[in-house]
Amino acid sequence: MIENQEYKEYKIILQKGADLNNAGAVLGWDQEVYMPPKGAFARGRQLATLASMAHELLTGNKIENLIERLRENEQLNDTEKANIRRSYEDYQRNKKLSSEFVEELSAQTSECFNAWIDARKKNDFQVFAPSLTKMVALKKQQAALYGHEGNLYDSLLDEYEPGATVAMLDKVFDGIKEQLPTILAKIKAATQVNDDFLYRQYPKEQQWDFSISVLKNMGYDFEAGRQDYSEHPFTTSFSPGDVRITTRVNERDFASLLWSTIHEGGHALYEQGLPEEQYGLPLGSATSLGIHESQSRLWENCIGRSIDFWSHFYPMLIQYFPQQFAGVTVQDFYRAANKVAPSLIRTEADEITYHFHVLIRYELEKALIAGTINVSDLPAAWNELYLKYLGITPPDDNSGILQDVHWSHGSFGYFPTYTLGSFYAAQFYAKAQQDIPSLKEKIAAGNSDELLAWLRGHIHQYGRRFNSEDLCERITGAKLDPAYFIRYIQQKYSDVYGTDLTNG
Amino acid sequence: MIENQEYKEYKIILQKGADLNNAGAVLGWDQEVYMPPKGAFARGRQLATLASMAHELLTGNKIENLIERLRENEQLNDTEKANIRRSYEDYQRNKKLSSEFVEELSAQTSECFNAWIDARKKNDFQVFAPSLTKMVALKKQQAALYGHEGNLYDSLLDEYEPGATVAMLDKVFDGIKEQLPTILAKIKAATQVNDDFLYRQYPKEQQWDFSISVLKNMGYDFEAGRQDYSEHPFTTSFSPGDVRITTRVNERDFASLLWSTIHEGGHALYEQGLPEEQYGLPLGSATSLGIHESQSRLWENCIGRSIDFWSHFYPMLIQYFPQQFAGVTVQDFYRAANKVAPSLIRTEADEITYHFHVLIRYELEKALIAGTINVSDLPAAWNELYLKYLGITPPDDNSGILQDVHWSHGSFGYFPTYTLGSFYAAQFYAKAQQDIPSLKEKIAAGNSDELLAWLRGHIHQYGRRFNSEDLCERITGAKLDPAYFIRYIQQKYSDVYGTDLTNG
Repeated sequence: MIENQEYKEYKIILQKGADLNNAGAVLGWDQEVYMPPKGAFARGRQLATLASMAHELLTGNKIENLIERLRENEQLNDTEKANIRRSYEDYQRNKKLSSEFVEELSAQTSECFNAWIDARKKNDFQVFAPSLTKMVALKKQQAALYGHEGNLYDSLLDEYEPGATVAMLDKVFDGIKEQLPTILAKIKAATQVNDDFLYRQYPKEQQWDFSISVLKNMGYDFEAGRQDYSEHPFTTSFSPGDVRITTRVNERDFASLLWSTIHEGGHALYEQGLPEEQYGLPLGSATSLGIHESQSRLWENCIGRSIDFWSHFYPMLIQYFPQQFAGVTVQDFYRAANKVAPSLIRTEADEITYHFHVLIRYELEKALIAGTINVSDLPAAWNELYLKYLGITPPDDNSGILQDVHWSHGSFGYFPTYTLGSFYAAQFYAKAQQDIPSLKEKIAAGNSDELLAWLRGHIHQYGRRFNSEDLCERITGAKLDPAYFIRYIQQKYSDVYGTDLTNG
Repeated sequence: MIENQEYKEYKIILQKGADLNNAGAVLGWDQEVYMPPKGAFARGRQLATLASMAHELLTGNKIENLIERLRENEQLNDTEKANIRRSYEDYQRNKKLSSEFVEELSAQTSECFNAWIDARKKNDFQVFAPSLTKMVALKKQQAALYGHEGNLYDSLLDEYEPGATVAMLDKVFDGIKEQLPTILAKIKAATQVNDDFLYRQYPKEQQWDFSISVLKNMGYDFEAGRQDYSEHPFTTSFSPGDVRITTRVNERDFASLLWSTIHEGGHALYEQGLPEEQYGLPLGSATSLGIHESQSRLWENCIGRSIDFWSHFYPMLIQYFPQQFAGVTVQDFYRAANKVAPSLIRTEADEITYHFHVLIRYELEKALIAGTINVSDLPAAWNELYLKYLGITPPDDNSGILQDVHWSHGSFGYFPTYTLGSFYAAQFYAKAQQDIPSLKEKIAAGNSDELLAWLRGHIHQYGRRFNSEDLCERITGAKLDPAYFIRYIQQKYSDVYGTDLTNG
């Protein structure tokens, strides 16, 4: 009996911490979506207060003692034990950093972010370099403090993808390095795809309305969320009952709004599917960034760029834009939606070349943390890798080494989760096709209900009960295997480019 | 030196408390404006957590000790001393209620609010009566705990209008009781005003656009705020740099949107004008509800329903709605905007009969707290007073005794601040006309800059430095005097009804 009381106390503290963090998420959403400019100053301090009070609650002695005692309690049920296990891991991890170190890192993050903004304005990496050098030093120190066995970089990965290691990622990226260049070369040699019609005039309102229809069809619950505009699309959740997405619009680029919506919609379906009764607890949170990204990419790419999906939606689309798509067949549209071409900017890359962008960042991050290159070597190393993998060279820093915000935030180990997301997506989607009879035909008939139910049943409902590797094995019977992604790419792009991309 | 350190600590605690309360205000705004329905459950607990953590911070021993020590500190400057003085008053007041009592009151408020909702659905006061009876008992207990000298009801007034008393309010309402019935009788005997054209079809978008032009003209800063729709119009502030208003729309009732916008715009100008450097401190907050309401009513009624204002805006208005106002002169429009007629619902009442609605609630509240009537007597007493003062009888509870939410919230002593607002507005506006040469001509030329500067200089910048009575005396040279309101009404409505409403 006394133990149940302690579990209750543990829950109260975690849920209060979640209330503060979710309140911060509401303020963050508002800041990106509706806040007037002069609100910025006070908003900054309000967010800081919420974060520091949540941190105090979630890392104090009181919660530490509760978790320590609850770990020994054999009478908890499985769900309770799973929560305590994750909370213990979180606690063990967090307590390795002194509060002085956390403050130093937080101060350096502000400085480094401002330096990045400044460098972007001046289009000059040298403006960013001194701050980034300090940041890299701090991240190495942080990795050492975590004291992870194996590679230092593993410690940093752990923050975004618990359990992921350099050994595992090297295998994933080897799959890319070995297979994708051949595929890319064959695509380059094939008849090129025309996507001119995607750059006609697409009025904002119709783009918006069409995106809402697509979200509804995906099963996104508008009683538990909404879509708004923001500069950079994102998903944010305040509870499974309130998960919001944003998108952006460009009237001269049809791709900009719709596939952002589908991508964020995939993230949001995950958050709407987390168990409400586990609010604020580990089992009420997503497994990892990689698994989160698997959901957005499965919907965006495996579904939202498939011929099945468009054989249902294209007739509706041309009702919205009859002139713009005059003379364009569904096959033309499908091919345009999947056009492959090396390009400079990661966020605008196609499904294949995208992973070279990530690979480049992964190699540079590993080398920075291992100390085999310095920040001052970055621009040259960056350009060298872009030439090697994509055959292109950035004309300036802004379209090269300065394009992403991540390093200024101290987020080393984050980029690989994007690739993990695509790979998990391919592996999950292959399994879903085995499990759901005629899935592609159902998608082609506008019915994705069973796919969503499958994702809910196999992934969403579990929160952090399993880590990503175990979850993958549990669902597909195998650990993450790059072969799934390669096979998915070969099949799809053989079709898109009308050329055989399979091996041998 | 040591004292300055203590003032700094005092400031940190108050500003952190303000951060939590302002975060709660953002969540509250979002709840009324954009939140999807299934977000309600988690939002409720997030708001409760923010409120309780703010309460802990702002009433703990730490802040009490700081305030006690800072009171003795002679080296603080005047502004610092004024903050400490108000914080001490707040503290003294709050500590008279035990935390058990606060919790009991809060629980009873939830229950009572739900009972009111239920009673509204059933249109039956008896459903509400048992909860309200408990609430009245608690409020009597609260008033006794405050231990205010004089009338028990004074203690409750103090929460909304520090320094206001029954003695002072009786004088204000005597002014109403003595003068307004004669004025009303003369108006009833005059040629009636036609306002049929206000109920034509007014498309939403044009109403909205016109309201935005009016707000801009008033000096409302859209870089530091925004307008949205909500069911009930309100103003909310997260800092002087982010003060938002809401309005509502009815396409068949022109009055619904515009004057709500002007009213809330008046509140918002006050909040935008509070000193930013006093964020979270007493001097960064509004004086009282009465002074707040004086700002909204001055803009809504003294300005926004004046012939001067419309001689500037009417030509613009008819460009938005040429058909709807065909054949309607500015004088016709002005008269319609000020039509007087007794009616059942307080929030829809005109500027004159409005105060009988408040008077009736004031008399009932005093009697309830004094124990001279019981909750069970309320419906009969209500109807009797409506017959006496307005000559009308509600056909059912929803249009009578159940129309306002206030009592279910335990807000006894709140209603009188509406009337105080109108009275302060009239007295301030009379003084502003003396101070600003040709003010009416400037308003008629579309220029309210000097009026806003006058309000900023005399009221907004001070926050809670002075209480409302002292502020009024400081500005106008006299304490609140009902004669100003009566004179304002006599002059304006003599014009509107083309009949002499002045005495003798």
